[in-house]
Amino acid sequence: MSLGSPLKRVDAEAKVTGHARYTDDHQMHGMRYAKYVRSPLAHAYVTAIDTYAALALPGVEAVFTYQDVPELRFPTAGHAWSLEPAKRDVADRQLLTQHVRHYGDGVAIVVARDALTAERAAALVEVVYQELPVIATAQGALAPDAPLIHPEGNTLKKSEISANQPKEAISSADFQLSAHFQTPVIQHCHMEGVTCFAYMEQPDHIVIVSSTQIPQIVRRTVAQALGMPWSNIRVIKPYIGGGFGNKQDVLEEPMAAFLTQKMGGIPVKVELSREECFFASRTRHAFSIDAELGLNHDGILTGYQLNVLSNTGAYASHGHSIASAGANKISYLYPRSAFGYSALTHYSNYPAAGAMRGYGAPQVAFALECLLDDAAEKLSLDAVDVRLLNAARSGDINPVNHKKIYSAGLVECLEKGRELFEWNARKAACKNQTGDLRRGVGVACFSYGSNTYPVGVEIAGARMLLNQDGTVNLQIGATEIGQGSDTVFAQMAAETLGIPFEHIRVISTQDTDITAYDPGAFASRQSYVAAPAVMQAASELRSKILAHAELISHQPQWGLTLLNGNVVMAAQPEMVLMSVAEVSMHAYYHQEIGAQLLAEISHKTTTNPPAFGCTFVDLSVDIPLCKVTINKIINLHDSGRILNPQLAEGQVHGGMGMGIGWALFEEMIIDEKTGVVRNPNLLDYKFPTIMDLPDLDCAFVETYEPQSAYGHKALGEPPIISPAPAIRNAIRMATGVSINTLPITPKTLFAEFVQAGLIRE
Amino acid sequence: MSLGSPLKRVDAEAKVTGHARYTDDHQMHGMRYAKYVRSPLAHAYVTAIDTYAALALPGVEAVFTYQDVPELRFPTAGHAWSLEPAKRDVADRQLLTQHVRHYGDGVAIVVARDALTAERAAALVEVVYQELPVIATAQGALAPDAPLIHPEGNTLKKSEISANQPKEAISSADFQLSAHFQTPVIQHCHMEGVTCFAYMEQPDHIVIVSSTQIPQIVRRTVAQALGMPWSNIRVIKPYIGGGFGNKQDVLEEPMAAFLTQKMGGIPVKVELSREECFFASRTRHAFSIDAELGLNHDGILTGYQLNVLSNTGAYASHGHSIASAGANKISYLYPRSAFGYSALTHYSNYPAAGAMRGYGAPQVAFALECLLDDAAEKLSLDAVDVRLLNAARSGDINPVNHKKIYSAGLVECLEKGRELFEWNARKAACKNQTGDLRRGVGVACFSYGSNTYPVGVEIAGARMLLNQDGTVNLQIGATEIGQGSDTVFAQMAAETLGIPFEHIRVISTQDTDITAYDPGAFASRQSYVAAPAVMQAASELRSKILAHAELISHQPQWGLTLLNGNVVMAAQPEMVLMSVAEVSMHAYYHQEIGAQLLAEISHKTTTNPPAFGCTFVDLSVDIPLCKVTINKIINLHDSGRILNPQLAEGQVHGGMGMGIGWALFEEMIIDEKTGVVRNPNLLDYKFPTIMDLPDLDCAFVETYEPQSAYGHKALGEPPIISPAPAIRNAIRMATGVSINTLPITPKTLFAEFVQAGLIRE
Repeated sequence: MSLGSPLKRVDAEAKVTGHARYTDDHQMHGMRYAKYVRSPLAHAYVTAIDTYAALALPGVEAVFTYQDVPELRFPTAGHAWSLEPAKRDVADRQLLTQHVRHYGDGVAIVVARDALTAERAAALVEVVYQELPVIATAQGALAPDAPLIHPEGNTLKKSEISANQPKEAISSADFQLSAHFQTPVIQHCHMEGVTCFAYMEQPDHIVIVSSTQIPQIVRRTVAQALGMPWSNIRVIKPYIGGGFGNKQDVLEEPMAAFLTQKMGGIPVKVELSREECFFASRTRHAFSIDAELGLNHDGILTGYQLNVLSNTGAYASHGHSIASAGANKISYLYPRSAFGYSALTHYSNYPAAGAMRGYGAPQVAFALECLLDDAAEKLSLDAVDVRLLNAARSGDINPVNHKKIYSAGLVECLEKGRELFEWNARKAACKNQTGDLRRGVGVACFSYGSNTYPVGVEIAGARMLLNQDGTVNLQIGATEIGQGSDTVFAQMAAETLGIPFEHIRVISTQDTDITAYDPGAFASRQSYVAAPAVMQAASELRSKILAHAELISHQPQWGLTLLNGNVVMAAQPEMVLMSVAEVSMHAYYHQEIGAQLLAEISHKTTTNPPAFGCTFVDLSVDIPLCKVTINKIINLHDSGRILNPQLAEGQVHGGMGMGIGWALFEEMIIDEKTGVVRNPNLLDYKFPTIMDLPDLDCAFVETYEPQSAYGHKALGEPPIISPAPAIRNAIRMATGVSINTLPITPKTLFAEFVQAGLIRE
Repeated sequence: MSLGSPLKRVDAEAKVTGHARYTDDHQMHGMRYAKYVRSPLAHAYVTAIDTYAALALPGVEAVFTYQDVPELRFPTAGHAWSLEPAKRDVADRQLLTQHVRHYGDGVAIVVARDALTAERAAALVEVVYQELPVIATAQGALAPDAPLIHPEGNTLKKSEISANQPKEAISSADFQLSAHFQTPVIQHCHMEGVTCFAYMEQPDHIVIVSSTQIPQIVRRTVAQALGMPWSNIRVIKPYIGGGFGNKQDVLEEPMAAFLTQKMGGIPVKVELSREECFFASRTRHAFSIDAELGLNHDGILTGYQLNVLSNTGAYASHGHSIASAGANKISYLYPRSAFGYSALTHYSNYPAAGAMRGYGAPQVAFALECLLDDAAEKLSLDAVDVRLLNAARSGDINPVNHKKIYSAGLVECLEKGRELFEWNARKAACKNQTGDLRRGVGVACFSYGSNTYPVGVEIAGARMLLNQDGTVNLQIGATEIGQGSDTVFAQMAAETLGIPFEHIRVISTQDTDITAYDPGAFASRQSYVAAPAVMQAASELRSKILAHAELISHQPQWGLTLLNGNVVMAAQPEMVLMSVAEVSMHAYYHQEIGAQLLAEISHKTTTNPPAFGCTFVDLSVDIPLCKVTINKIINLHDSGRILNPQLAEGQVHGGMGMGIGWALFEEMIIDEKTGVVRNPNLLDYKFPTIMDLPDLDCAFVETYEPQSAYGHKALGEPPIISPAPAIRNAIRMATGVSINTLPITPKTLFAEFVQAGLIRE
């Protein structure tokens, strides 16, 4: 069995030996380098620009300003196109701008023979700005006299969800609780930065090589940005060193394409520095949430209402999708409770926020799981018990989209976690504490969808080609970005074909001119939505192999099957008739019969089951030092059938690490008055390293999702969601202080502890 | 109508603007360069080799000698694999050799940081040779005491063909004639030299980028040379600047693959200089032919016998296939005459001969068409009449393979040519000439197959993918090498799909990991064998488009058709229902129905109809100056339906130019005693330039071949065949001297004219 085994990643050796080639490993003859001229002001209008000195610098080949770019606005969100104009992303961006909307917004760009010259020349471009008032918050953006960041207004979108009359449900409960929550602006900090280059291979054909999660969407968007037919753009995605949603945005590809077009087709590279990644790519949305719930004495959550203000920064990017998706994804968690949700996404003069692992769910779950925990505590209910009582169970109906939940392992996750974590014993040890060092335990839950349907169209493709030696090349539209999808696709193909896992060769590069269509890596969708395509293609190829085996052997194919790379008798599988390699050689090279055996499937998915899970954490708080030490943390996941336990663990560990970072460390410090980003680098932006993290434990509850090709559900994003509220809840248990603002840094703790009278200022 | 129109090449703009990227345009980070240590002796044994000084040169990274290469022998011929071991090519080559078999044979190779250093280091490798006797000719090779060039003996292979008892047919004729013919060693002189580089993208996966006609065969052969599974090798063919059969051999790819493997996967480039191309790639076989025929007074060719000695040089390469294919290809020409053919291919210490445009047919046709012409003259028969009498006609059966000839336009070619050329008038003007300047006219015919079936397996693949904007990406296994195949495939696809030619985007790069299998560009096979795959894939895609149009429109698909990129009513084609782009957008982006529309076909061809044609030439011979001036030359071709008249003309012009070069100019001068190549460069090797060539006329007789997907037959190689015998026949008419040795240079003419008493020494 290939599925379910902890098989080694197909790209493991290529990556550890350095054979894997990333975007920056690709060189081209005559490549030119581009560097932006960026505004030092967060809100301004350019009144004059002088490129003379920059152009005079030896090695500089061109300078383009906002005056030179197409008068076309384009969207950048990594969403598949929609046939309905109202569902399309907001097109609010040009390649360069005269109206500066955030610190570091690009007003001009220099192309030179080397990157250093380009950078020096960029500093020589003289720009005169007319300063405008900076908008940092919802209050600022929505004020009646607020200056407009975009002509359409500062409100990007509003939406409301209501299921089972939440207002009434809450007020009818035994107990009501409300609170305000605030989450920070953070950055993805993927190991490989934002980088791409473009060149032309025909006068009307632009090729872009990019570190992107979404090559097909990049293709479409570049065409929109340059006003060309979509098929004039070709996007190639080589190996990629992480994206976490930042590369689910169209970032520098339109600029690279524009520049090569302007420069006659020579290759032009646009690579952002780490600093630029912070303020000129995308961030996670800061949410400001007013939350309210009703809880009965018996622990029944009658209903909850969350009102979100989402700060999307200077450009829409994914904009309101994040706020609305966060609610959708979490709506599976307590499906028998009434649920109200309102959200407003507004522009500000902050760097543009976009997609990031979890896509709104971490923020929403933080508010819900903290408030529920506080309410349970007030009613002296056990935090696990109250969740067990309200948690989704198989057969429940999602109150928002009315879809039936077939597989729900959340109860089992909580029960298994309670046992593995020794919740009761640990909780008992936290009672009646005094002294400076106090211990607490916390728990939090989440639910998360397995793709974007029905909001987005879910389509995936797989192509298989049988090699002469019996191995199979698997080409897949879905993009491997480090998460391990190529490996599980190889496992799926091996399983359905009946050949060894080692005989599957995955083509890891996507090329939009060639590879079957798939919108890309996001929404934890890949293994779910590509599986039916892989399964169908493998079934078709398997049938072709058996049909050709019949031509050779004259044994009816219905009595044959494939096992471990051989054609065997179905009724007696130890009886090997011939190898798949022999079938393949005959099919390729017989003079008259046969052909190359291959299969390709493009498939749309119209189901979207939720994954579930929870985090248990045990931590100590040193109150005078305002220091949190995690003693133990464990994530439990119901992601359906686990396709590869080793890779699944890797995803969980990575997500937990990011979740802890969001809870305790990370924050982009942006000056509210000026919009200047104060810590755009990995020295001043505190990102947890291996030294900052405890041992990360995880366990799985394997359900089998019947809507899924191989029984599995989402796993990529979920692990990031529940650590933060679990940690915050444990801190409350330890200290009695409910901290509703992330990150819970020593500085935050100090302020909260002073306010709570635990320490003096 | 797309087919039959003189449409612009799909790669025209990319090539003239410099956007098209060839192998040498690809750079890779850290690329290393390799240069051979080559033997100055043509036959020798290395007794000692010292690499110390070479390794000590700064910048040199490695030196490998014959002691370091795998103990594996591999073939290099560009033939599809055969399931029958006896039909496989001779594996007589290692990567480097201790037994030097030709001038410039490689005994060691240097890898350095730049090509110049590698070259300097190669000169520092000290080699001690034990000299062996040099074998230049069949006589030398077949002598009983001849030293063995390969352990299996100096005879590579012998074969015989006999149809309708040629011996009896010849002796029963009214008149018999015999003669000996000799053709030279020449080189292809493609504009882009032999070049490739290799690197590894996984520890077991070697990627080779090469200027090759046969990426799939390179893949297999490199695997054989390195003892690896075939699927471990990946070959990518970018744009390519001509091959003419030289790149139908596996040349430097195994070496590049070996070197990158040895160097841990870093890119290593092996690029031959023009000099090395001459003696270390491949040449055209020199044939030594004894020919005999029987002709009746009424002009009936009763039979002919050709006995060929083919000199394949130091290594087999295509070896005996050339001699046997030459006979097969020409056997359609006079199918009602008895035909005998024997051939022996032998090794020598000449550079290895391989495939070259015409593949043995030019040599065989030269002997036959010259001898027939001489015989006709002896019997006072008109050269055109005698050919018309014996020429293949529709319904004839090929005497060798017993296949029926469905389309035969040879009679029409001769008749049309006689009229266009004004044969009778020109011929009359050549009577009773005296003086130094004499004029002659000549004619010669050929036949040629449209692929390699049934000798080789004929398989081709095509994949089509409908883009969102209604354009179609066409991926094709067949390799564009300059001949224009990509353009005719686009025409075929447009025709069958019912969309404009401009809407077809051909992926010109073949990648053996991805592209549908096709053995490559040779045997004038591409447009013939790939056409059924293109036609079927287009039909399938068309059906899918119409089926989806029904989903949108609820009009039954059977009442719809595609015209000019639109879905129209079949019964009223002016009535446009929607565009293909609209269908495509709906299929991609509807939330529930549809999918990406695509189709892929792998197809085997089991028919092989012959193309026919002839050359008419009018020339003047200045006897004292031994100078030939062509006054007029015209080729006439029956290649079935002409798919693109402009490209067809281009093929004919190119072939005629090469044919004239072979007739009058080109010869590799190899010292028979030492085996040294005296003129391995384009200064001393006389290749005709535009200044040496007359206006090249051509005309087509369009037949419709019913075995062909679009009615067409071979055209790539045929134009090279008949110019040489036509020129030689015209010289005989002008001077009375039958010159049976090519090339007919002033030097040859001088010797012949002296011997004939026309001039004095």
